[in-house]
Amino acid sequence: MIKVGVIGATGYAGQQLVWILNNHKEVEIEFISSYSNAGENMGEVYANYKKYFEKKLISQEEAEENFGKIDVLFLALPHGLSEKITKKALENNVKVFDLGADFRLDDSETYEKWYDVKHEFPEINQSAVYGLPELNRGRIKESQVVACPGCYPTSAILGAAPLLKNKVVKTDKIIIDSKSGVSGAGRSVKIDTIFTEVNESFKAYGVLKHRHTPEIKQEMDKLSENDMNVVFTPHLLPINRGILSTIYLEVNEKWKESLTEEKIYEIYNDFYKNEYFIRVTENLPEIKNVKNSNVCEIGVRYDSKTGNIIVISAIDNLIKGAGGQAVQSMNIMFELEENMGLEFLSMYI
Amino acid sequence: MIKVGVIGATGYAGQQLVWILNNHKEVEIEFISSYSNAGENMGEVYANYKKYFEKKLISQEEAEENFGKIDVLFLALPHGLSEKITKKALENNVKVFDLGADFRLDDSETYEKWYDVKHEFPEINQSAVYGLPELNRGRIKESQVVACPGCYPTSAILGAAPLLKNKVVKTDKIIIDSKSGVSGAGRSVKIDTIFTEVNESFKAYGVLKHRHTPEIKQEMDKLSENDMNVVFTPHLLPINRGILSTIYLEVNEKWKESLTEEKIYEIYNDFYKNEYFIRVTENLPEIKNVKNSNVCEIGVRYDSKTGNIIVISAIDNLIKGAGGQAVQSMNIMFELEENMGLEFLSMYI
Amino acid sequence: MIKVGVIGATGYAGQQLVWILNNHKEVEIEFISSYSNAGENMGEVYANYKKYFEKKLISQEEAEENFGKIDVLFLALPHGLSEKITKKALENNVKVFDLGADFRLDDSETYEKWYDVKHEFPEINQSAVYGLPELNRGRIKESQVVACPGCYPTSAILGAAPLLKNKVVKTDKIIIDSKSGVSGAGRSVKIDTIFTEVNESFKAYGVLKHRHTPEIKQEMDKLSENDMNVVFTPHLLPINRGILSTIYLEVNEKWKESLTEEKIYEIYNDFYKNEYFIRVTENLPEIKNVKNSNVCEIGVRYDSKTGNIIVISAIDNLIKGAGGQAVQSMNIMFELEENMGLEFLSMYI
Amino acid sequence: MIKVGVIGATGYAGQQLVWILNNHKEVEIEFISSYSNAGENMGEVYANYKKYFEKKLISQEEAEENFGKIDVLFLALPHGLSEKITKKALENNVKVFDLGADFRLDDSETYEKWYDVKHEFPEINQSAVYGLPELNRGRIKESQVVACPGCYPTSAILGAAPLLKNKVVKTDKIIIDSKSGVSGAGRSVKIDTIFTEVNESFKAYGVLKHRHTPEIKQEMDKLSENDMNVVFTPHLLPINRGILSTIYLEVNEKWKESLTEEKIYEIYNDFYKNEYFIRVTENLPEIKNVKNSNVCEIGVRYDSKTGNIIVISAIDNLIKGAGGQAVQSMNIMFELEENMGLEFLSMYI
Repeated sequence: MIKVGVIGATGYAGQQLVWILNNHKEVEIEFISSYSNAGENMGEVYANYKKYFEKKLISQEEAEENFGKIDVLFLALPHGLSEKITKKALENNVKVFDLGADFRLDDSETYEKWYDVKHEFPEINQSAVYGLPELNRGRIKESQVVACPGCYPTSAILGAAPLLKNKVVKTDKIIIDSKSGVSGAGRSVKIDTIFTEVNESFKAYGVLKHRHTPEIKQEMDKLSENDMNVVFTPHLLPINRGILSTIYLEVNEKWKESLTEEKIYEIYNDFYKNEYFIRVTENLPEIKNVKNSNVCEIGVRYDSKTGNIIVISAIDNLIKGAGGQAVQSMNIMFELEENMGLEFLSMYI
Repeated sequence: MIKVGVIGATGYAGQQLVWILNNHKEVEIEFISSYSNAGENMGEVYANYKKYFEKKLISQEEAEENFGKIDVLFLALPHGLSEKITKKALENNVKVFDLGADFRLDDSETYEKWYDVKHEFPEINQSAVYGLPELNRGRIKESQVVACPGCYPTSAILGAAPLLKNKVVKTDKIIIDSKSGVSGAGRSVKIDTIFTEVNESFKAYGVLKHRHTPEIKQEMDKLSENDMNVVFTPHLLPINRGILSTIYLEVNEKWKESLTEEKIYEIYNDFYKNEYFIRVTENLPEIKNVKNSNVCEIGVRYDSKTGNIIVISAIDNLIKGAGGQAVQSMNIMFELEENMGLEFLSMYI
Repeated sequence: MIKVGVIGATGYAGQQLVWILNNHKEVEIEFISSYSNAGENMGEVYANYKKYFEKKLISQEEAEENFGKIDVLFLALPHGLSEKITKKALENNVKVFDLGADFRLDDSETYEKWYDVKHEFPEINQSAVYGLPELNRGRIKESQVVACPGCYPTSAILGAAPLLKNKVVKTDKIIIDSKSGVSGAGRSVKIDTIFTEVNESFKAYGVLKHRHTPEIKQEMDKLSENDMNVVFTPHLLPINRGILSTIYLEVNEKWKESLTEEKIYEIYNDFYKNEYFIRVTENLPEIKNVKNSNVCEIGVRYDSKTGNIIVISAIDNLIKGAGGQAVQSMNIMFELEENMGLEFLSMYI
Repeated sequence: MIKVGVIGATGYAGQQLVWILNNHKEVEIEFISSYSNAGENMGEVYANYKKYFEKKLISQEEAEENFGKIDVLFLALPHGLSEKITKKALENNVKVFDLGADFRLDDSETYEKWYDVKHEFPEINQSAVYGLPELNRGRIKESQVVACPGCYPTSAILGAAPLLKNKVVKTDKIIIDSKSGVSGAGRSVKIDTIFTEVNESFKAYGVLKHRHTPEIKQEMDKLSENDMNVVFTPHLLPINRGILSTIYLEVNEKWKESLTEEKIYEIYNDFYKNEYFIRVTENLPEIKNVKNSNVCEIGVRYDSKTGNIIVISAIDNLIKGAGGQAVQSMNIMFELEENMGLEFLSMYI
C-alpha cells in the first residue's frame, strides 16, 4: 500500500483527488489537510462524503508532523505555497505531486514574471518533472517531484503534440481557443462566479494574459523545437466540469502536398497508440464524453485546399486536468498499472 | 411625469426595478442610490446598461437630500433598513414603495419575532398597505406607503385566493411547496450560491422557518377568515428567475358534492376576470411562460374522488414578485393604466 | 462470475446499468441488446464507451437465443414489453431483473387500469418481488423475478417508510411533491424535452394522474397497514439527474405528546441502521450529494406546535432509482456484498 | 401604420420576430402564418402569448391571399422556401424581409453549392440587399428585398469590420471561433438537442463546412477588398440564447509600428460612433449583457509584441442575429427611428 497525504483537500481539485485516492486499491490515505476547514470532517465540508469517508481534516502543521508516515504527498494549493512544504517533504524522503503551478515552468524567471512570486529553492523546481504522462512517462518514473500540468495546458498540449512532434505544421503561431467549466475557478466566493452571473452567459477572460500561456508555450516549444507564438484564449462555460480546446494550425510546406485528414488521423493514432487515456475519435469531441473521467478525447478536421487544421480536444478539468492525472503519474512512479483507480468512464449524462 | 428615486438600485430586485422604470413613459428617474456602488455609473455595475443608461449611483445621504425633488421613492433594501428612510420620505410628502419586508406584517410583534428587528415607528407600519394589487387595489390608491409583497407570498396568495375567498376549501391547513430561481437570494457572495454548488443540484432550505411564512399566513387568514396552519417549503432551482408554487388544498364539506374541475376554473376566471396580469390557464403553468414579465400564471387540478385540489402558480420573482408589482402599484396610485410600462411578455426561451 | 444480458441497453436507464455492470468485478456481460441500435457498437451510440467498451448491440431475437448462456437478464424496456421475454427467460432458468413497470403492481387489474396493458401471464407478476432492498431484502434473495421500483417511488417510499412502519403519522393522506431531472423522461425526442424548452424553466406534469401513484400507494399501504390517500405531484427540473421528494406528513394522536425532531431522527437512524446506501442526514438533502451514486439521502424537519413533519429524500434517478438498485438486488440474490460495484460516491460537482 | 405579415411565425426566430412586431407602435400585424401550426392560436403554440396575443395562425395559402393587405412580409423559413413567396409578394408591391439564407449570397452559384438548392429566379437574389444596417444602411433604404444576415455572420462581421475596412490587419486569413446557444438550432426535435444531451456539455459542430462560412467570407472580402481565407468554427453552448465570437487577427506591416490597443479602440469607436445598437466596451463582452436585446457588444485586446489582435463580439442570436435586425432594417426602410420597438435592454440575469 502506498501511504499518501493530501494538503489542500477541500478545494475542488483537492476533493476530487481525495475521491480518486479513496477508490484506489493500492492507496491508503494517511491524512488530509485543509487550511480553511481544519478540524472538520470531510463529510461536513462535502456532504457527498458523509458516512462514507469521514476522515478528519488536519492543519498543515499537523500534516507536516506526519511526513514520516507517508510515501507520497499531494499538494493542491494556490500557487506560491508549495515550495516550502515540498522542501520538508523531500527531507523526509516523501515523493511530491504538486497540482499547483509552482514547479511547472522550467525557468524560474518566467515563473516569477507570470506569477509574481519568487522561487526560494530554485533547485527543487529544477528537479521537478512536468507530469504529463503521455509525454514524460520515463522521467516521471524517476523523479521526486512531479509538477502536475494545468488543466488548460493538458488539453492544449495533448491536442497539438502529434502534429508538433512530427513537424507537420507551421510552428510560428498556434491559436488555442479554450472553454472551461466553472470548477476551474475553484471553490472561491466572488461575485463573478455566483450562479446568476454565470448561468445563461458566456465570456472570455484573461485574454492574452492568462498564466497558463507560458506553460503551454514551454511544452510546445519543446515539441516543435521552435520558439512559438502561442495565442491562448480561455472562456468560461456555464457548466461545472470540462474543458474543450479548439486549436488552429496550418500545414507546413513540406507536408502540404501529401497531407490528408486520414493521414492526420494515422499520425494521431500512431502517436497515442499505447495511451490508455487518449481516445482519438473520428467524431468531434464533446465534454459529455469525458467528464467525470480521466479520458482525453481528440478529433481533427483538415481542409486540404487552405491547409487549415483544426484539432479539438476535451478533458475533465478536475480529473485529467488535475487529480486524475496526478494519480496517473503516481501509478507510473510506483510501477502500478497506469489506469489503476482511474478506469471509471464518463456517465455521459 | 412622476419623479422617482430608487434606493438599493444595484441588488437584483433593485436593478430590475430600474430596468422597468427606465422604460416607463410617465416616469423620470431622478436618482438611483446604492450602498456598495455609490459613485459608479449603473453601466459599470451592470454592463447591460452601459451606453444606454449611464446614470451615476449616489449615496443614501445624497439621496435623502433629493427627497424634495421626487414624488415617489422606491426602496429595495435588506429588511430593517427601510423604516428611517421612509420616515424622512413621508416628511417630504414622498410616496414610498418598499420592496423589502419592513412593512409587510400588520403586527409589529410578529415582524420583530420573525425578523429580529424592532419597529421604531410602528405607526408607519400601521399606515402601510400590503401592495398586492389584485387584492388591495382600492387601498393602494389611497396610501402613502406600499409594502410590496415578497416573491413567494405573491405566488402563493394569488394561487390560493379564489378558493380561500370563496370558502371552497378546508382552511385548517394549507401546504405550499415553492421552488425559486437563484436570483431570489440576491447578488450576495456566499459559497452556497456559487455556480458549481447550485448547478445540477436542487434542495429545500429554511424548511418550517422561512420568513415569508407569516406573510403568507397573514394574507391567507384574511382571505379565509380563519387561523390557518400554513406549511411553506421553499426550494432552490438551478435557474436565474422564476417561482413556481404547488399548493395543496382539500375541498370542504359544503362544496364536496358539487365541485368539479370546471367549476374551479369558473371560480378562478371570475375572480380574476378584470386582472390584466393574471393568466388562468387550463394547461399547467411553467416558469418559461412568465419569466421576464409581470404575468402570474395559474392552473388547477382536482380529483373529485379524494377532494384534493392542486393549484400551481408561476411568476417571475424579480418582476411580479418584486419590481414589476411595485410599478403596478405605483400605476394604480397615480391613476395610470395599470399595465403601463409592464406590457412586455416573456420571450419564452 | 455471474453472466448477464441486458435488453434495452441504449435507453438512459439501460446504458447506466451497463456502466455499472461493466465495473462489477463479479459480473460478465454476455450480451447487450437494443431495439433501435442493434448492429451498432455501444461506443457508436454512447461515445463515452468508445474504445473502452466496444461491445456490439444485438437484436432481441439474438438475445433470446443466448438465454442459455446467462444467469441473469436485465430488462430496461418501456412498460408492456417485459412479460413475454421474462417468460422465456424463466424457461431457461434465468433470473430476471425488470427495470420497467410490468411487475411492480401486485394487482394485475390495477396495472391494467393505469398502464392500459393486460398481463398475459399474471402468474409471473404474482411471483415477482418488489425489488426495494431496504424493505424486501429477504424476499429478493429467494425470487426469480425482481420488479425494480420506479424512480419516484424509490425516493418517496424510502423517505416515508420509517414513519409509516412505526405508526408515527396519520395515514389517511400523504402528500409527495417530487422533482426530477430530465433523464427520467428517457432518451426520446419530443418537443417538450428539447434543451431550449426545459432550460431556465420548471413545471409540474401528470398532476394527479402519474403512473407511479399506484406503486407508491401499494407500498405505503403495506407499510402503514391502511388504505392511504396518496397525492403525488412530479415536476421537471432543468438538470440531467436526480430526484428530490418533499413529503408532507402529520404526527398522529398517539405520538403527538412525545414526538420531537430528535426522536424522529432516532427512528430513522434505527430503521436504516444496517443500510449501506441510506444516509440519514441532519442537514437537508441535496441532489448534488447523491447524483452519480446509489446513495439515498434523507432528512427530516418537525414542527411540534403544528405536528407537521416534512421529510426530504434525494436519489439519483438512474442509479438508486434504476440500474444501481437493480444491481443491488442482484448482489443480494447472489449473496455478494450488497455494495459490490456500487461503492462510487457522488463527485459533488 | 405599417401592415405586416409573418410567414414562419412559430419557429424560434419567427416567434421572436412576432414578439418584437407586437410591441412596435408603428406596426400592425395583419397575419401570422405557420406550416406546422396553421389553425391554432399563437397562444396555443407558445403559452407566453396566451391571453395577450391570441392571433390565429393561418396557412401559407391563406397568407398569400392576403398579400394585398400588407406593406411588408417577413419570412422566417428554412432555406429554399423563400424564393417563390418573395416573387408573389413583389408582384403585390410588398417589401420582403427574409430571415432565411435564400438571398444572402450575391453569387447564385455559391448559394447552390453550399445549400444544395437552385435559385429559380436569380434576379430576385440580385436585387436583394444584405441587411446588415451598420454596413448597408443606404442600400436597405432603397431595396425591395432585404436578406437578413445569419446569426453567426452578424457577430463575426460586426466584430471585424472596423479593422478590415481600415486595412489594419493582414487579410489573408481570419479565424472566427463562435459559440452559440441552442435556440440557433431552431425548434426541431432531434436527439442532439434534447436537454440531457446538451446540458453540462459543449462541442464544436460543422467544423470547416458550416453554411455561414461563405456568407462571412463574402462580406469580409468586400470589407477587406481581398480574397480572404475564412476559418469559421461554430460551437454549441448549453444556454438558450446568444452568440459570442472570438476573432483572431494580426496587425499588418503598415500598422505594426504604430498600433496600440487604445488606437484600436479609437478605430472602433469612430467606426460605430453613430450606431445605436453597437456597444464598444473596454471590458470583455459577455452574452448576459446583450441577451434579450438588439445590442451587439464588442471588445478588443492587442499584444503589440506579437501583433495579435483578438476581437470579441456578442449578440442575441434571435434578436440582433434574426428578428431584431430585420425590424431594424424595416425601420430604416420606412424612415422610422432606427431603434423603434427595439429599445429594450438585456435584463442581465
